[in-house]
Amino acid sequence: MSDAWERLFPRLEELRDLASVGSLLSWDQAVMMPPRGGPARAKVISTIDALTHSRLVDPEIGALLEELRGDDSLDELKRAHVRVLAKSYERATKIPEGLVRALSEESGLAYNAWVEARPANDFAAFAPHLEKLLALKKEEADAVGHDGERYDALLDEYEPDMKTTQVEDMFTDLVGGLRPLVEGVLEVAGDKPAFLSAAYEENRQEQFSQTLVRRLGFEMDAGRLDLSPHPFTQTISAGDVRQTTRTEPNTVLNCVYSAIHETGHALYEQGIPEEVLGLPAGNAPSLGIHESQSRMWENQVGRSRAFTDFLLPQLKDVFPQELGRIDPDEFYRGANFPARTLIRVNADELTYNLHLALRFELEVAMVRDELEVAELPDAWREGMQRNLGVVPETDADGVLQDVHWSLGAIGYFPTYTLGTMYAAAFYRKAEEELGDLAPDLRRGDGSRLLGWLRANIHRHGYIYSAGELGERVLGAPLTAAPLLDYLKVKYEEIYGTAL
Amino acid sequence: MSDAWERLFPRLEELRDLASVGSLLSWDQAVMMPPRGGPARAKVISTIDALTHSRLVDPEIGALLEELRGDDSLDELKRAHVRVLAKSYERATKIPEGLVRALSEESGLAYNAWVEARPANDFAAFAPHLEKLLALKKEEADAVGHDGERYDALLDEYEPDMKTTQVEDMFTDLVGGLRPLVEGVLEVAGDKPAFLSAAYEENRQEQFSQTLVRRLGFEMDAGRLDLSPHPFTQTISAGDVRQTTRTEPNTVLNCVYSAIHETGHALYEQGIPEEVLGLPAGNAPSLGIHESQSRMWENQVGRSRAFTDFLLPQLKDVFPQELGRIDPDEFYRGANFPARTLIRVNADELTYNLHLALRFELEVAMVRDELEVAELPDAWREGMQRNLGVVPETDADGVLQDVHWSLGAIGYFPTYTLGTMYAAAFYRKAEEELGDLAPDLRRGDGSRLLGWLRANIHRHGYIYSAGELGERVLGAPLTAAPLLDYLKVKYEEIYGTAL
Repeated sequence: MSDAWERLFPRLEELRDLASVGSLLSWDQAVMMPPRGGPARAKVISTIDALTHSRLVDPEIGALLEELRGDDSLDELKRAHVRVLAKSYERATKIPEGLVRALSEESGLAYNAWVEARPANDFAAFAPHLEKLLALKKEEADAVGHDGERYDALLDEYEPDMKTTQVEDMFTDLVGGLRPLVEGVLEVAGDKPAFLSAAYEENRQEQFSQTLVRRLGFEMDAGRLDLSPHPFTQTISAGDVRQTTRTEPNTVLNCVYSAIHETGHALYEQGIPEEVLGLPAGNAPSLGIHESQSRMWENQVGRSRAFTDFLLPQLKDVFPQELGRIDPDEFYRGANFPARTLIRVNADELTYNLHLALRFELEVAMVRDELEVAELPDAWREGMQRNLGVVPETDADGVLQDVHWSLGAIGYFPTYTLGTMYAAAFYRKAEEELGDLAPDLRRGDGSRLLGWLRANIHRHGYIYSAGELGERVLGAPLTAAPLLDYLKVKYEEIYGTAL
Repeated sequence: MSDAWERLFPRLEELRDLASVGSLLSWDQAVMMPPRGGPARAKVISTIDALTHSRLVDPEIGALLEELRGDDSLDELKRAHVRVLAKSYERATKIPEGLVRALSEESGLAYNAWVEARPANDFAAFAPHLEKLLALKKEEADAVGHDGERYDALLDEYEPDMKTTQVEDMFTDLVGGLRPLVEGVLEVAGDKPAFLSAAYEENRQEQFSQTLVRRLGFEMDAGRLDLSPHPFTQTISAGDVRQTTRTEPNTVLNCVYSAIHETGHALYEQGIPEEVLGLPAGNAPSLGIHESQSRMWENQVGRSRAFTDFLLPQLKDVFPQELGRIDPDEFYRGANFPARTLIRVNADELTYNLHLALRFELEVAMVRDELEVAELPDAWREGMQRNLGVVPETDADGVLQDVHWSLGAIGYFPTYTLGTMYAAAFYRKAEEELGDLAPDLRRGDGSRLLGWLRANIHRHGYIYSAGELGERVLGAPLTAAPLLDYLKVKYEEIYGTAL
């Protein structure tokens, strides 16, 4: 056993514990903190961020990593810890402290500007902040290093090792297949089922979600489900994975599918072995891989005919007045109702990725200096017309709708689509190996699928990169084909017509 | 403005933020954390404790404090920050790191042993742990330094500047006055009113508490009230003060008076100016002063005839079946019902301090090497007979009942009694200055009292020591007399007889 490893490991534990603190601070901020605690909380978070950064970039860590990089006596897990930590260490040490501070300050200002600009529909007020932030992100990309494609260095933070051109190729295939499919489906989709927007008592929505997530395998003695305006999943530590959902008075399926989506994330976290969770190799290898789990449970499982057939009687027990007369066909169609939506987070499964294709296209163009911030609103409208055949009347419902850019999260959006593509591909593979899962889902039983995901994905953590993991599972690189096939088959079944 | 101050202040903020993290970790552990998160949480807490300690004992802080100690250009608040931080710094640097670790490890083991020993009624299993811990606490006292009275150095952690002999003198006076009073009251007290142990729906108890604490002035936009098995108050940060209460199915007054008690603590924390809260001088000067606020709201306010007259109709609205036929006399007697109780936390206001006198006497004797751990159970029984006229049949209901010693909290118990004595003295002073408060309390209005406490106590934080603050408010040192007078008058009123 290497002495360097023995000296490195307590530092890994310290970094894991600091990350746990950061997770708790932000979970609590979103779910529990009283409003007047906000300013002090922001300071505490920045103190912990600074401490974490200073512990990560400690030259002693660099020296130990240097020593361990060539150490063949380490087992696979330890080698993965070293490799993943080295990646974080290098990224962190390459970005000058002044730039870190400038990014943090400017994203704070840009976020505040966005919070005001969106309801005021005032893109001009937000634009100067986005310009500054974009300039800083380019600086960051150059500091991290790239081979001419700056966006690679930004994407790498969320989807390590993935290249911009790979993503572009996949989006080209996906959008090319989606556009005609969407047109065909929308022609036959008819009116929105009325039950989708009836009144549903919010306490009962929450109670229903508590039962549902347990049924899907979420271990409540090692986690929580709470409410928050924006659903999310946050791992605090081993044995403590927390998810949230949201309730709205005039719809029930948003709450149900948010809960199923977050359960997908949460099951992943609960499936990473507890003794490595939060250490460098005890995380998902990428946001795309993480999103594959949430999307698969939400869509391939949750919106399948088999699962909606299971779900409807359960929901009828809780909402007999509201759903008593809804039949399984109508419920299934409602759970998959497609529309030309202006707002991404309200989009259905079919059109969702057309929203993301636009965001990816625009942010790549900006990072490549092919698009000015001032040109964004026009480019947005043009892209919405092209991808979805609908144009927002306001920037509030257009380019200002998402928080991501205001936080400096450039390179994040494509991971949503990568996740959706991985979800379809993984699910197809699971059914190839396990046989038809519909009979399970009709009973509300996801355990065989969960076992397969645990064995093939969750338990590996970050021992393999996202690309390696994908190829191990799929036997081939990721493509858009499984997602396109899945959507075509599904919507042909729903509307009983060739598309 | 001193340059040293400018360099010290960011460190004060960092220590404040680390303390905030520690507070959130323990609040969450007690209130929110799922059970399987326990082991990882213990590690995170110990990582943060170690980081906090290493930041506190940084020699740079020592040098800055040295420089600032003689700096007359600092204003009163800054001088207080320097004085209080210097006290923490000195204590922390005097205790060798090995001893800190040994104390932390041994108290972990002792706590685990206590958790098993209490239900098993097995003092012998706990005794060796208490012996080790006691030896370490004596070592700590010697490292910190004292003038021959080791207990002074332990007491100082909870009640700075207070001396053991002062506390002994006050306890002698208090116990001397209490014993005959208790005997007299118990002779006339009669049977326990039946409504005290009826069934009360727990959700409604909690809802009632939420309303009650707001009514007493707790600002809910700057705090929370949750449930936990052991009620406590924890300040997370400025604008974020959290309290808990507990519900039990077969009584309602425990929940109500726990909530009022914790509200006393919480109002104090909400009354410390937000810009200093959590900095060295932005804390209470001692646990006794803190406890004075909780005891005053619980007892002088909450158990007064005027307030119980306010409370009863409110409670009847929520529990019409259970309390509908209870009259104000009976309710008042029930809220103050005295008994020879074995368990401290169940004790009434009259007898409570006799429990604490025993614990103080025993821990002082152990620290002075006048009592062996092995002799504790006998000494406990003898002391219970002497103070309360009742003897526990088991150690579980005797010497094993409290968690404090297992955590190494020796010197903590007397602060409960100091708080009770301060409460009576402060309240008498408040009424001297404000006039009779009963008419306010009969309306459920504590605002004049709260204003007085804010002006005279809360807003000062730790600018004055506990002793200085007490003398500023009272015009004289603390004695047991106000508490004894208050109890005598009250119980004479309740039972309509001279005592």
